[in-house]
Amino acid sequence: MRLSRRMANVHRSYIREILKVTQRPEVISFAGGLPSPDHFPVRAFADAAQAVLAEQGPQALQYSTTEGFPPLREFISRRYREKWGLDIPPEEILITSGSQQGLDLMAKVLLDEGDTVLIERPGYLGAIQCFSFFGVDFATVELTPSGPDLEELAMRLEEGVRLFYGVPTFQNPSGTAWDLTTRQEAARLLAASDAVFLEDNPYGELRFLGQDMPPVRAYLDSEQAVLMGSFSKIVAPGLRVGWVAAKPGIMHHLVTAKQASDLHTSSFTQRVLARYLADNDIDAHIALIRKEYGERREAMVAAIKEHFPPEVRHSEPEGGMFLWCTLPEGVSAVAVFDKVIKKDVAFVPGKPFYVDGTDGSFRLNFSNSTPARIAEGIKRLGKCLREVL
Amino acid sequence: MRLSRRMANVHRSYIREILKVTQRPEVISFAGGLPSPDHFPVRAFADAAQAVLAEQGPQALQYSTTEGFPPLREFISRRYREKWGLDIPPEEILITSGSQQGLDLMAKVLLDEGDTVLIERPGYLGAIQCFSFFGVDFATVELTPSGPDLEELAMRLEEGVRLFYGVPTFQNPSGTAWDLTTRQEAARLLAASDAVFLEDNPYGELRFLGQDMPPVRAYLDSEQAVLMGSFSKIVAPGLRVGWVAAKPGIMHHLVTAKQASDLHTSSFTQRVLARYLADNDIDAHIALIRKEYGERREAMVAAIKEHFPPEVRHSEPEGGMFLWCTLPEGVSAVAVFDKVIKKDVAFVPGKPFYVDGTDGSFRLNFSNSTPARIAEGIKRLGKCLREVL
Repeated sequence: MRLSRRMANVHRSYIREILKVTQRPEVISFAGGLPSPDHFPVRAFADAAQAVLAEQGPQALQYSTTEGFPPLREFISRRYREKWGLDIPPEEILITSGSQQGLDLMAKVLLDEGDTVLIERPGYLGAIQCFSFFGVDFATVELTPSGPDLEELAMRLEEGVRLFYGVPTFQNPSGTAWDLTTRQEAARLLAASDAVFLEDNPYGELRFLGQDMPPVRAYLDSEQAVLMGSFSKIVAPGLRVGWVAAKPGIMHHLVTAKQASDLHTSSFTQRVLARYLADNDIDAHIALIRKEYGERREAMVAAIKEHFPPEVRHSEPEGGMFLWCTLPEGVSAVAVFDKVIKKDVAFVPGKPFYVDGTDGSFRLNFSNSTPARIAEGIKRLGKCLREVL
Repeated sequence: MRLSRRMANVHRSYIREILKVTQRPEVISFAGGLPSPDHFPVRAFADAAQAVLAEQGPQALQYSTTEGFPPLREFISRRYREKWGLDIPPEEILITSGSQQGLDLMAKVLLDEGDTVLIERPGYLGAIQCFSFFGVDFATVELTPSGPDLEELAMRLEEGVRLFYGVPTFQNPSGTAWDLTTRQEAARLLAASDAVFLEDNPYGELRFLGQDMPPVRAYLDSEQAVLMGSFSKIVAPGLRVGWVAAKPGIMHHLVTAKQASDLHTSSFTQRVLARYLADNDIDAHIALIRKEYGERREAMVAAIKEHFPPEVRHSEPEGGMFLWCTLPEGVSAVAVFDKVIKKDVAFVPGKPFYVDGTDGSFRLNFSNSTPARIAEGIKRLGKCLREVL
């Protein structure tokens, strides 16, 4: 079977393959990137589903507009205004089938074969995979603990970038949050370039330490700035509801691309979600998640300090779902993975997050394990690491 | 804002624009392509949603596999076997976000810029729009009342076709169903070519006259045959759940493309749908839809015979949701639309269903209006047509 040329650029997700190995029940896995199901609002969501079907009936199951359910777009618009003073009207918000779809739509509308896409180093694997379908060339900018290296960013933008994709708050995989100065300075550099900045913010609400940080979009209010968001981490990921906020010049084309891609996102899930948000205190729910995730992150950092050999460096993120570890120079995390999985504990090697295949780091997820399981798993992992190093 | 080159090939749906005009409440519109909401199983669906959340809890809201919810894939596989004796194992079925997404995934996996895509003439607008994003060249084969013109099909395949997209049963827009001989002969021609046949079958279950017809796939059991289906017309379209059935050689890549496009289709809607299908008699439900749609189609044909000028030719479909009318030589359906909409009645001009912009035909939807409203609307439309012609 002859495939399209673009398929030569894309690879089945390495993480997918890893997750198969880690699904044995005896494995304590920090490999997945799952939010904690213990905090999904199952009961309130069931009530919302009943109310929607009882009150809105067949309309909740009929075809609907490509742009999305108006009350949901209004909710998102209102939240940007109340939280950050951002003026993003509902008309500039497109509901997507998860924010992963936002990547695909942006690529369709903006990217030609051979265009340069700039990503953070390390960068989000799902974006690398999505953009690979469009035959682009990747450039990278080093992610320091305060955000992208600004000198390198200036240089890359100078060289010519069509799209800069970044996750400024609690990035996957590194957990890094850009600091305020970096946000402002990056916005200034972007404004002076003709690159589009695609800002992905699925984890921004999950802060358990320090101050909430405005999106870069707050400092770059132009057609260049496209902001994505998601209900996956604050309500539930199985709904597949996210959004793209873009100015009308891009929005018009995103809607056309969305129509050709899946007509619209499920009317049913959109309406149930909108009803859930109307009937419940989402801030109280987010506060609960923040508290629980904070405890899990605490448990992981404490266990690492106790059990890991000191030559393994680790991040101490202020939010999100991930902690990032770096092995001593020359040690392969892929090779270490093959050893630790035999001891029934798992992480994701950092390699697939680097377009140049850099090995030597790994990602730990803390949101999806209880503190007790984290303590036991990190102890096991620490023992392996001591043996290997 | 510089867009990707592919955006020069695609246009916002003309029907979308038309639907805006036809939404005034006083308009009797046969323009939309909506199934009847009167027959959505709202109550049973609400019960299924409750059962899923009560019994499966957070798992119904968590990330899930790209391929789809296993019981749903098993249902589809079983139905193919029971209905047509087709052996399509669950592993060869990928759940998609509506069958529109199946088009996008197939295009990603198979189509390069400049490839030739063959479609029926007229052809499904959503497919034309989707494939336009991939910079393909369109070729067409005339759709006769018994299916594609076989001599022309042979010629086109001879000329070299990468993908042949067809809707063999109650096509949108024409309502045409290929007869059995045409299915078998088309399969033979396809087997002798190296084209992939993408068979879209959203309307196949909606037959109210004559005998159910097996998919072309029944006569072309090779990697070349890819079959799509949808729950939109037999359960409800707002769920956005469809599927692609393909052999492993293509399936593997479709899964990779799906992962990059939206990770997976909503776990929640998939589980609720699977539960609805397990707890209810879907054949009894389909029988009800067939009966109701049959009555609506009867009402429309009868009213057309009474009110339309005889020089307007019309189809008499045995199933589906659409009836196709052809104006006398030289009369523009677009121009007629502009007149009839002023009399508060609407259809969709046929022009956007032709890649060469052929004008002179129009599509009438009968599934979404009661027989009484159909009688009144067709009377109104007949009066306009008599005045115009």
